[in-house]
Amino acid sequence: MADKDCRATLIAVATPLFAEKGFHGVSVRELAKSAGMNLSMISYYFGGKEALYAAVLNEQFATLRQVPEIRNMETDPLVKLELYVRSTVARYRKQPYLLRFYTSELTNPTPCFETIIKPAIRGVLHALRETVVEGLSNGQFLQGLDPMDTALALVGMINFYFLLEPVTAELVHRSPDRDEVLIRHLMDIFTKGVLK
Amino acid sequence: MADKDCRATLIAVATPLFAEKGFHGVSVRELAKSAGMNLSMISYYFGGKEALYAAVLNEQFATLRQVPEIRNMETDPLVKLELYVRSTVARYRKQPYLLRFYTSELTNPTPCFETIIKPAIRGVLHALRETVVEGLSNGQFLQGLDPMDTALALVGMINFYFLLEPVTAELVHRSPDRDEVLIRHLMDIFTKGVLK
Repeated sequence: MADKDCRATLIAVATPLFAEKGFHGVSVRELAKSAGMNLSMISYYFGGKEALYAAVLNEQFATLRQVPEIRNMETDPLVKLELYVRSTVARYRKQPYLLRFYTSELTNPTPCFETIIKPAIRGVLHALRETVVEGLSNGQFLQGLDPMDTALALVGMINFYFLLEPVTAELVHRSPDRDEVLIRHLMDIFTKGVLK
Repeated sequence: MADKDCRATLIAVATPLFAEKGFHGVSVRELAKSAGMNLSMISYYFGGKEALYAAVLNEQFATLRQVPEIRNMETDPLVKLELYVRSTVARYRKQPYLLRFYTSELTNPTPCFETIIKPAIRGVLHALRETVVEGLSNGQFLQGLDPMDTALALVGMINFYFLLEPVTAELVHRSPDRDEVLIRHLMDIFTKGVLK
């Protein structure tokens, strides 16, 4: 295998293991065995378990780091906020382990929390906050709205939905366009709640 | 110590340990040592580590099981929903480990998920859903609102806020009445979003 492929294989193998057992629950031996590689390969490619875990988190949080790009778009603040909601839905559907890393780093942080998770989430919150401020400045949103709490309300609505999916699976109507229906319902409540 | 006190001590000692290390990360030996008790006491009082963990979760989720009582109150649906929000804030402030158990059981369930966590959360969601239906029936809420998604929007707004606190600590204005301000902001957005 080329170096690039070895790195990618180790990240792919490590992702579900770290997600299920946590950083401390996985040994270098288990990682090497699952990847079908020699123990020393983890040191060779990553320098150790910590750095492999950081590489996994960097990959998991990569699309979150793209969210702030909504600020550069020439469009309505509500369209930008809906784009964030849509990208969040797409992210969870594509990355089945993301929520585990997200919640475990928030409730039981490793050193990666400060270096990877916190900056990524802050970037999102700042971008959403700025978008709310834009809606306030152009007179579209209700004066008196707190920009950060408004951003947090939207973030909470959509993210917590995915956390509760193991409970709600049988409570919500599962149609092929369920995600689209959900986005509509949440955006309708949010939009009506913030407009002037 | 009386039997009741021994049980309470074991639960109190086990709560932070299970919260920080997860069910699999804590040994019976460690639990006994931390409680200053003989190893056999855990079997004697609980029958094993699984039952002690279940006792911890039962205690943590006890107040969540009281939420459905809002259905019996003779008051406005919006008042009931705000009561849920207030009880949620109070719960997280009083129980610093609750969020860890909540998120770890939702993302990496143990057998307790089906017996304790899922029924407790379902009870809350059913009660909130019914309250939204009540607001629709009396013509107060906007027709066309999906009752379950509306309940989930409110649940997400307030619960995810606490999950993000390690990130937002420096981003939101910390006043002594911060929780009250937050409740007001979220309820204002939600109320305006659902009213007719």
